[in-house]
Amino acid sequence: MQDTITAIERCRKPVIAAIHGACIGGGIDIITACDVRYCTESAFFSVKEVDLGITADLGTLQRLPSIVGYGKAVELALSARRFSGSEAKELGLVSRVFGSKDAMDEGVQAIAEEIAAKSPLAVTGTKAVLLRSRDLTVVQGLDYIATWNSGMLLSDDLVEARAAQSQKRAPSFSKL
Amino acid sequence: MQDTITAIERCRKPVIAAIHGACIGGGIDIITACDVRYCTESAFFSVKEVDLGITADLGTLQRLPSIVGYGKAVELALSARRFSGSEAKELGLVSRVFGSKDAMDEGVQAIAEEIAAKSPLAVTGTKAVLLRSRDLTVVQGLDYIATWNSGMLLSDDLVEARAAQSQKRAPSFSKL
Amino acid sequence: MQDTITAIERCRKPVIAAIHGACIGGGIDIITACDVRYCTESAFFSVKEVDLGITADLGTLQRLPSIVGYGKAVELALSARRFSGSEAKELGLVSRVFGSKDAMDEGVQAIAEEIAAKSPLAVTGTKAVLLRSRDLTVVQGLDYIATWNSGMLLSDDLVEARAAQSQKRAPSFSKL
Amino acid sequence: MQDTITAIERCRKPVIAAIHGACIGGGIDIITACDVRYCTESAFFSVKEVDLGITADLGTLQRLPSIVGYGKAVELALSARRFSGSEAKELGLVSRVFGSKDAMDEGVQAIAEEIAAKSPLAVTGTKAVLLRSRDLTVVQGLDYIATWNSGMLLSDDLVEARAAQSQKRAPSFSKL
Amino acid sequence: MQDTITAIERCRKPVIAAIHGACIGGGIDIITACDVRYCTESAFFSVKEVDLGITADLGTLQRLPSIVGYGKAVELALSARRFSGSEAKELGLVSRVFGSKDAMDEGVQAIAEEIAAKSPLAVTGTKAVLLRSRDLTVVQGLDYIATWNSGMLLSDDLVEARAAQSQKRAPSFSKL
Amino acid sequence: MQDTITAIERCRKPVIAAIHGACIGGGIDIITACDVRYCTESAFFSVKEVDLGITADLGTLQRLPSIVGYGKAVELALSARRFSGSEAKELGLVSRVFGSKDAMDEGVQAIAEEIAAKSPLAVTGTKAVLLRSRDLTVVQGLDYIATWNSGMLLSDDLVEARAAQSQKRAPSFSKL
Repeated sequence: MQDTITAIERCRKPVIAAIHGACIGGGIDIITACDVRYCTESAFFSVKEVDLGITADLGTLQRLPSIVGYGKAVELALSARRFSGSEAKELGLVSRVFGSKDAMDEGVQAIAEEIAAKSPLAVTGTKAVLLRSRDLTVVQGLDYIATWNSGMLLSDDLVEARAAQSQKRAPSFSKL
Repeated sequence: MQDTITAIERCRKPVIAAIHGACIGGGIDIITACDVRYCTESAFFSVKEVDLGITADLGTLQRLPSIVGYGKAVELALSARRFSGSEAKELGLVSRVFGSKDAMDEGVQAIAEEIAAKSPLAVTGTKAVLLRSRDLTVVQGLDYIATWNSGMLLSDDLVEARAAQSQKRAPSFSKL
Repeated sequence: MQDTITAIERCRKPVIAAIHGACIGGGIDIITACDVRYCTESAFFSVKEVDLGITADLGTLQRLPSIVGYGKAVELALSARRFSGSEAKELGLVSRVFGSKDAMDEGVQAIAEEIAAKSPLAVTGTKAVLLRSRDLTVVQGLDYIATWNSGMLLSDDLVEARAAQSQKRAPSFSKL
Repeated sequence: MQDTITAIERCRKPVIAAIHGACIGGGIDIITACDVRYCTESAFFSVKEVDLGITADLGTLQRLPSIVGYGKAVELALSARRFSGSEAKELGLVSRVFGSKDAMDEGVQAIAEEIAAKSPLAVTGTKAVLLRSRDLTVVQGLDYIATWNSGMLLSDDLVEARAAQSQKRAPSFSKL
Repeated sequence: MQDTITAIERCRKPVIAAIHGACIGGGIDIITACDVRYCTESAFFSVKEVDLGITADLGTLQRLPSIVGYGKAVELALSARRFSGSEAKELGLVSRVFGSKDAMDEGVQAIAEEIAAKSPLAVTGTKAVLLRSRDLTVVQGLDYIATWNSGMLLSDDLVEARAAQSQKRAPSFSKL
Repeated sequence: MQDTITAIERCRKPVIAAIHGACIGGGIDIITACDVRYCTESAFFSVKEVDLGITADLGTLQRLPSIVGYGKAVELALSARRFSGSEAKELGLVSRVFGSKDAMDEGVQAIAEEIAAKSPLAVTGTKAVLLRSRDLTVVQGLDYIATWNSGMLLSDDLVEARAAQSQKRAPSFSKL
């Protein structure tokens, strides 16, 4: 079960969570393994496991602290209390709160398209390097990105990005 | 002296800090070793050590960054500036600000009772796993909780939590 | 190039960033290596690298997550979106937003003077210990500061700080 | 390809390598992922990758140093030199050298049967805890084994091992 | 129980194990927490826990690999086989094998006296820094020893060591 | 001073130590930062610092344990005892002992030429990846080498190595 959820994190492409309604227990495990999170005003959340007599074991206790901070994660996990979409924004769990499900669907679709139009190499590299750096010292993380880019910097995407910029047009990247 | 404060962190049960009045220097060492923090509006805080000509050495510099973020911790520790209860909330240092000491005493008592009524195994497990995961990679933390739960999942608490839920009554757990 | 930016972090004295106008790409690399960050209301920011077809490799992906939290850092780095000074404050990237460049220059000058008037040993120790602890477990970080202070606690700064306090005068420390 | 070899390490049961003839390049990747290694006198070994113009990438550079020591691993990997079964024993790469393939087959079969007759819980626990501890601090590793055993100590295997010992008979354990 | 054994490791002074006769199970836990190990020819050893149906949990699985190498530790722990004093030397578990208990008692006494005559600051510093460095990256370990020595280098022991050397006499250090 | 010695380790090309005569204190710091070590029969060694009243601070305490094992490093550093070239070989500190300085000069020259004739990309990659992996978990090290090779695998060196092998000639690589 852990692997199923970690698969979201391992997916080379960014994964965006758009949350509406209840996001409880396993829902928190899933959204914390996503790269970016959005929700509606009527969404609500709870790290519910203690109320079920168990210790959350699918990733919430590992990933939530790096997203909202250790102290907030402890409070949410020990109390299992319900919190709203706007508190989720305040806690740093979601990046934006939309007024309705329609607004969110439209907004998130636009964000997804915007990211999808960017250089695939740059986008997958950014996701990969952020993930690896999370578990490395800063010195090790700097070395990792230098190694990563030594294989990537000569890519066509960089050339195309520069050409598009100087020609004031949208860049067009080939798929990975 | 470090061990005295770390003992709060090592206590199997969650420790809640209810802060009223001045929380200065060693006070910050203590509350950052607690699991959850609440304060009154008139509480005030300062990471005061640099003003005493010393480098804080009882845990603030190790624990505050994971609670409020590295950048904010640096600013508070270098400036030693005083900040209010409501800024403490904004910084993520406390989870809630109460209007008066009486309101806080009552509110925190209620929260403590609520947590105490939950499955002791789930509560102590959640605290323990969050603490260990703070210093592990995500892969290691996921393996740790899987190991933890392999010893715990068959507990009576899980059965009682499910029974209580289906019978729509409050669960009653045995002590650890 | 990484070393140039890491030099800011390695500087024994605190480095304060005062940000006005555009802070884009390499600008984010630089300010995240500083110890404290302030900006004006009209400052704006962007982790721009993905738009250039590259993966940021001068420190943003390593240092931004510990400052604003992992989730927010991912969102900013994948979207490359522009954000304002006040959002930078809300994200935890800057510690204070000033109404104008003049107000910021004056305010930051005052903060810098205040920190400069403190015990140099305590200030450089606080910076050094926070930096090392960022990449250590809490147990290791506590041992590190104990070792640090075993060499520092008998310093004249501590004596001067106490004398000044009891004599209700400003302390006067010798340079390092 | 890395996952294929790491699967040996992840296998809950111990995996024994019995090496005869050439063990070159990928062969070293495989045997270093095994738990125990034996070879014949006529076996020979080489960390061959540099001679093929590549950097070994299936695990040798990660696992060989912890088996033979960092210095010896560097020397073997940079020189790609061929070494004999008896040097492999001296280097600590194999645990025993047999005079012939027949002697090895018989000897390793006996060892495998001996391990297979032991408590499955104890054997898989020992492998798992050694593997996890390799990548943890000693403090973290001690906490890990304590957590592991809190779920395992009440097992029937312990009871059976004690009973067999006091009755001076071979224990008989149930399968996992 | 773990703490009892870890106390040997935490003792500021070096602890020497002199092993005669059987060193089995818990005996291995104890000697791997010591700083230096010697034995007699007739000493014998076994990591016995799997034969008792349990996973060793007092430190052997955490400390033995760094002493004898990971591969040898796995083989010893999975097989629980008995090995002699001279194999212990070959494995790197002990530093020297003595012909008899009397010879060992005399020899170890001499070694202990020799170490005790050295600068206490240097001896306890060497033990402490080796222990901390075991769980740090090399970069972190180098920084740690630099911090350690910044508090120690001006000690009287250094002056006395130099004076004694130039005067060709044995140094005489004050106790810690 | 630490940086001077670490520069040996950071050098992209392998550095070989050929040791004749006394290798004491700082000498051990230097040779443990080298990649491969050879010595003559009359060479002798001592981790001498405790005899000078100081704790070694230029790398011996950080690098020696990974080369000879933790237990042996502790014994050598606490006793400061002198050991011979052949014991250095037995301890794993050197890879080979030569009968005379002339034999060593000739032998090491031959080894250096042999390594220099190999693919520069493969040789520098092997050194770099071994160094990084020393301070990473195995999972992280495997990911690092995969990233490293994604930038390197299409190099001309690989093609040349294969061509030379099939044409049974010595390969000829271009310089880095």
